Formats: sequence, structure tokens, C-alpha cells
Amino acid sequence: MTYELYYWPTIQGRGEFVRLALEDAGADYVDIARGREQDGQGLGAMTALLEDPAIARPSYAPPFLRDGDVTIGQSAAILLYLGPRLGLAPTHEADRIWTHQIQLTVADVVAEAHDTHHPIAVSLTYEEQKPEAARRARDFQANRIPEYLAWFDHVLSRNGGRHLVGDAVTYADLSLFQLVEGLLHAFPGSTRRVLADNPKVAALHDAVRRRPRIAAYLASPRRIPFNEQGIFRRYPELDL
Amino acid sequence: MTYELYYWPTIQGRGEFVRLALEDAGADYVDIARGREQDGQGLGAMTALLEDPAIARPSYAPPFLRDGDVTIGQSAAILLYLGPRLGLAPTHEADRIWTHQIQLTVADVVAEAHDTHHPIAVSLTYEEQKPEAARRARDFQANRIPEYLAWFDHVLSRNGGRHLVGDAVTYADLSLFQLVEGLLHAFPGSTRRVLADNPKVAALHDAVRRRPRIAAYLASPRRIPFNEQGIFRRYPELDL
Repeated sequence: MTYELYYWPTIQGRGEFVRLALEDAGADYVDIARGREQDGQGLGAMTALLEDPAIARPSYAPPFLRDGDVTIGQSAAILLYLGPRLGLAPTHEADRIWTHQIQLTVADVVAEAHDTHHPIAVSLTYEEQKPEAARRARDFQANRIPEYLAWFDHVLSRNGGRHLVGDAVTYADLSLFQLVEGLLHAFPGSTRRVLADNPKVAALHDAVRRRPRIAAYLASPRRIPFNEQGIFRRYPELDL
Repeated sequence: MTYELYYWPTIQGRGEFVRLALEDAGADYVDIARGREQDGQGLGAMTALLEDPAIARPSYAPPFLRDGDVTIGQSAAILLYLGPRLGLAPTHEADRIWTHQIQLTVADVVAEAHDTHHPIAVSLTYEEQKPEAARRARDFQANRIPEYLAWFDHVLSRNGGRHLVGDAVTYADLSLFQLVEGLLHAFPGSTRRVLADNPKVAALHDAVRRRPRIAAYLASPRRIPFNEQGIFRRYPELDL
């Protein structure tokens, strides 16, 4: 069965956490909104599903995943579902929920990173909330990035250093890689300084980047470059 | 087995979503940080667990739940674990993940509601970010509360109107009740107007409030009143 991923076609965003899991597993999937309209794909196919009042279980927002009759939204919930199917989650329930707990903490950082350029409203542009963004971005770099990366480093240390959970790669490892990628893009100066204090996070980031399927994906046109429409944006005036 | 809930003892906060599930199920639990130090409880027992470097799977922040050897943090992950054990989640995997997806969307609204009084930094007080809070709270009431509650109303409508998932109460119903409680406390004027447009959400809120164990809990000293240390705060200058 081919998985169908529905997400904005021009950004990494929250969909990227799902893309990385599918790519690392070598899964058969279609990134629907990036497909061609004549194939029944494209952005229109996604918005039709989001807005169709007949859909029994609509997602509030992309990303969402279709697997046959099942449709799942919220990136962490998608990974909860995909993890065991892709060999990217442990077997036992308590281990799976711990993996998911880590993913939810990644999602918290992602939401905070987004709000560094949108501290007031998603309905406004960055340019309409620049002074507030500068203030929030300062605190995020001074306090939040250090606090969160120290926690991930501690979790890695307590588990032997190489993986967040167990002795094999899980989707949580891939997601921490992506979080660090995003932070390095948006706040290169301060993130590099924090990584120097959290060497296990830095090492995990390097190790995931070298995984053959991830390396191939990152070098492919399937990997959308970071840009100033996504969650992690480089506004040089915000980097400390 | 007695469940041990660890959460800040003076606020509803994110822990309240867990308390409501435990209370509605009549579960045997202890709210550890509200207990007495001479019983090995109290705030010190919670911070000791949070800060103990020997803990293999530390939570980033409260709430967390202990069930024997298992410790779980992140309120949505706790409910994912408790749901089937308390009879507050459906049986089939796809239904359980849909219930969780709804909970994650509740969590998104909760985070946005928190940031109406803390749009810049959790390390600052409300008084240190009042102009930004006023701006964010305006957008939250004008755009976000209507968008989110319309989505919940649509989900209820698509499922027959009485429950968010299936034909019985799940933790998602209890959480939507708590979300509406919080919004009514923080933003009474605008929330009442939005509820008038979303009658199924309003009806679910009323129905959950009347459930015998919930009604008994709300009338008991176990229910901490809303206050200006929690997530949902009433600052009259922010209500539209």
C-alpha cells in the first residue's frame, strides 16, 4: 500500500518530520500536494480533502497521512501510527509512548521556533510583528534553545549516547536531527554555541545526516530547501 | 495499583486534563505534589523526580504520571496511555489515534491560550509583556477561538453531535470541556459569542459538566479554582 502524505508543497514545515521517517524507511509514498493536477494530485487535491464537509475525520491543518481507509493528522500522531509500521519505533508499549513523549517535546520546540517570527498572530506577516519577534527570538535563543537541547542531551546520555530510545534509530532520532537542522538554519550563531555544550545532540545530528537513505534524500530535489515561508526562517536580524 | 500524578499543586494547568480523566473514571490516584511532605509527597517529591540525574526517562516538565515502573510525561501522552485503562478511549487503533489527534489539537489551543498572556517569554511576567499580550489576545479571540471551536463543532456534527469519537465519552470529550471552561474563564465575552455559533461544543460542555463524577469533582476542594498563575487567566483588559 502506498502512503499518501498531504502537506504544503513549498516548505519543510511540520510535514518534514513525516517525510524523514518515510524516507529513512524507504517507504512507498506520494507527497500528494507536490504532484501534478492531471494525476489528481497537487495543492487542490489537498485543500479539497481539508474542506470537504463529507469527510468524517477532518484534520485541523496539514500535515495528514492517508493509509487506505485511515486518515491521520498532527505530525506526532502520524509518527505514532507510522513508527511501528516503518520499523522506527520500539516494540513495547511503554517504550513507544516514551518515543512519542520525546516527539511531543520536539513539537513543543517547533511551535516555539515558529513563534519567534510570529509571536502575535499567524494572520499577520513577520514584517507586521518585527519588534515583538526580535524580543521573543532573543529569549528563545538565550533560554529555550539551551534548556531544550540540554534535555535532549541528557536523555541521550542516560541511554548510552547514540540513540534517544533503545539501541536502534527511532523516528524521535530523525526528528531531533530535523529540529537541529532547523535551529541551525534559523539561528546559526546561537545554535552552534549551544551544540558545543551538548555534544551528544551534535553527534546524533551528524549520525542521522550520514544515514544512507537520509543522505540520499537530503541531496535529492525531494528535500525542499529552507525558506522564509517555513517554520525555521533565517532573518539575520534575529540571530544573536 | 494507585496512579501517581505529578503536577504543580496550585494550578489547573495542563495537569487538569489528566485529573479530569482520572476523576471521571473514578480511578485510584494520588496528586503527589498536593500531598504532605511527611508522607513523602509535596512539591519537593515532584522536583526531586524532575531533577534526579539518575532518572532514565525524565520528563521535560510536569505533568507526569507514574504507574508502577512506567513514568510518562506530556499530558497528551499520559492520556494516550490512560485512555484504554480508564475506559475513556475506543478499542480500535485508528479510533484511538483519532482520539489522540483531537487531544493534540486541544493541546495546540492550550499553548496558544497560554501565549496570550506570555507572547514573548515564559521567563518574564505578564506585566513585562502587556502590550504584546494585548495584541496577541485580540487576534486569539478574533480568529483562533472561532476557527478552533468551529472545527470541534464540525467534528461533533460529523459524529452525531454528542461525542467527539464513537458513541461514548472519551478523554477527548473531557478535554474539550476543560478547554471551553478555560476559555470562558479567560475570555468570557468573546468565548460566549463563539459558543453561540457552535452549539454542539456548548452542549458537550454542559453534558460533561453534569456527569456525576465530574460534577462531584468540580464541587470538591480537589478542583483548584482558576487563578492568575495558570494557563487560563482572566485579565479583564484582554477580554474583547
